[in-house]
Amino acid sequence: MSSAFPSLENLRAGGKRLLARVLTRLETRASDPETAAFLDQLCNCRHGRVLGLTGPPGVGKSSLTDALIKTYRENGKRVAVLAIDPSSAVSGGALLGDRTRLKTDPLDDDVFVRSMAARDRLGGLSDHAVAAITVLRAVCDQVIVETVGIGQSEGDLKQAVDTVVLCVQPGSGDSLQFMKAGIMELPDIVAVTKADMGALARRAASDVVGALSLSSGGQSWQVPVSSVSSQTGEGIADLVEQAGKHGAYLQTAGLVEPMRRNQHVAWFEDMVRTAYGQTGLELAGNDKVTRWQDRAQDRPFGSYAEFSENMNRLLRA
Amino acid sequence: MSSAFPSLENLRAGGKRLLARVLTRLETRASDPETAAFLDQLCNCRHGRVLGLTGPPGVGKSSLTDALIKTYRENGKRVAVLAIDPSSAVSGGALLGDRTRLKTDPLDDDVFVRSMAARDRLGGLSDHAVAAITVLRAVCDQVIVETVGIGQSEGDLKQAVDTVVLCVQPGSGDSLQFMKAGIMELPDIVAVTKADMGALARRAASDVVGALSLSSGGQSWQVPVSSVSSQTGEGIADLVEQAGKHGAYLQTAGLVEPMRRNQHVAWFEDMVRTAYGQTGLELAGNDKVTRWQDRAQDRPFGSYAEFSENMNRLLRA
Repeated sequence: MSSAFPSLENLRAGGKRLLARVLTRLETRASDPETAAFLDQLCNCRHGRVLGLTGPPGVGKSSLTDALIKTYRENGKRVAVLAIDPSSAVSGGALLGDRTRLKTDPLDDDVFVRSMAARDRLGGLSDHAVAAITVLRAVCDQVIVETVGIGQSEGDLKQAVDTVVLCVQPGSGDSLQFMKAGIMELPDIVAVTKADMGALARRAASDVVGALSLSSGGQSWQVPVSSVSSQTGEGIADLVEQAGKHGAYLQTAGLVEPMRRNQHVAWFEDMVRTAYGQTGLELAGNDKVTRWQDRAQDRPFGSYAEFSENMNRLLRA
Repeated sequence: MSSAFPSLENLRAGGKRLLARVLTRLETRASDPETAAFLDQLCNCRHGRVLGLTGPPGVGKSSLTDALIKTYRENGKRVAVLAIDPSSAVSGGALLGDRTRLKTDPLDDDVFVRSMAARDRLGGLSDHAVAAITVLRAVCDQVIVETVGIGQSEGDLKQAVDTVVLCVQPGSGDSLQFMKAGIMELPDIVAVTKADMGALARRAASDVVGALSLSSGGQSWQVPVSSVSSQTGEGIADLVEQAGKHGAYLQTAGLVEPMRRNQHVAWFEDMVRTAYGQTGLELAGNDKVTRWQDRAQDRPFGSYAEFSENMNRLLRA
């Protein structure tokens, strides 16, 4: 296939600049059938692991990301970071400048950082985030997706990553309230930041353990709580180890394949819902030939491109 | 018009049981043209004021609602409460039982309480909430709408009420972080609950004042901060006074009419987005005869019923 997109081999060998160009092309030509074919080809490739970091602003996600990059690089991993910047509900614009806090080495070709503005919801992923993750996961060993959020946004993140880490800081009341009330979708790991705060941090960690014990119910994965300090480095290796354990758990329990398929369907449904609402979802599910959701399990991007073409033919006749 | 719905006069005179029956009919016959006509007739009626109370679980919204009901009743107002129960992200069900906390007198015919399950999002309003508010506002002097939320959900509430009160409690970190980061849509009033906690409560109130000063920009309404204790009654009269001041501000600035019209359009757009997505919104806006959004300003319910019929004709042919 002569394509505007490089082969996976060339992309892996091509360095950061090629990767950046490909991600830009995904955004500007999102509705091309060629883009869909490129992404469908990569989306079943099991290479990198994807860690999602979420938490309220100011909790220390960027510093933690920095510390994680450092640890993963020391372990010889090629790392990519996708930072989803919150859009301001008031101004409507992305809160820029946040990204400049990441202290990555521009000369290290094995650390790639990309930022995107979030869609309308706080903590919601960008329209192009799943496409970008699909590519980064095929090229790098470890992908870190960073979003701002609390409570409801973890659902979005769960649709796109393998392991969700919720970051909370000592003295934060609302996160605990949401956990206790059972409203928050459970993360896979909780990281209590600012462990260097001593007694206050220890108290916070035990509060989180208490809140988790109230809301966990019959899951085979026990959500661990890591106390981390990006400043002193305390707990970072433990967090990386917990993330590795969660990855191994998914693998040995045979959960990776079904999770990815569910994520593909969830992405397809999210795109259909955004473009065509509840009615679009019903039409996709009631198709006489094949339920579109079933097709989307292995070919999410191509399935959406075709469904979308059908809908537009009906509506814009 | 011979109708399944009573006239406004009969509804006002008919007591709580008739009101409850009408609200149930709105939910079960939401798509009837008759229902739309009934609601369109009421929606421009300027009678009651609508206060929205929002905040994280455990902040004390129910106790505060109790205290507000008491104060409004002492002032001779007929009061209605619409409590939007959060759905659990994990179980998918509404977290019931919360409502039993309201300590209203069942024999007082001038206090009406109704609860509804929230739509999929945390803090999101129910599909039928705006219809219910439209009726309650026409029948009662003061309507209180209670939702669970923080940050992003205030936008929803602003589409349905006159005055948004955000409740925060001493020691809550996340709410302040969201305010400081400019992510949170500003409420009209902030109530710091549990004022009986003394120094901690005073510290919280001054933190909120600080966070507000960072994010307020050129608005003509200065967001007041009320310290309230539902237990001792401290600050409740002040909060009622602040809500009254905000209502008077909207009135004298000539903002009530445009706000209601905007709310009608926002409701119409929300319904179209939910049922037909972004594509539905574009089609509504590009109609050759009249933009549907313009029609929705005065007749939101009828406009949506007609638009919906048109769309279904195209899609389900």
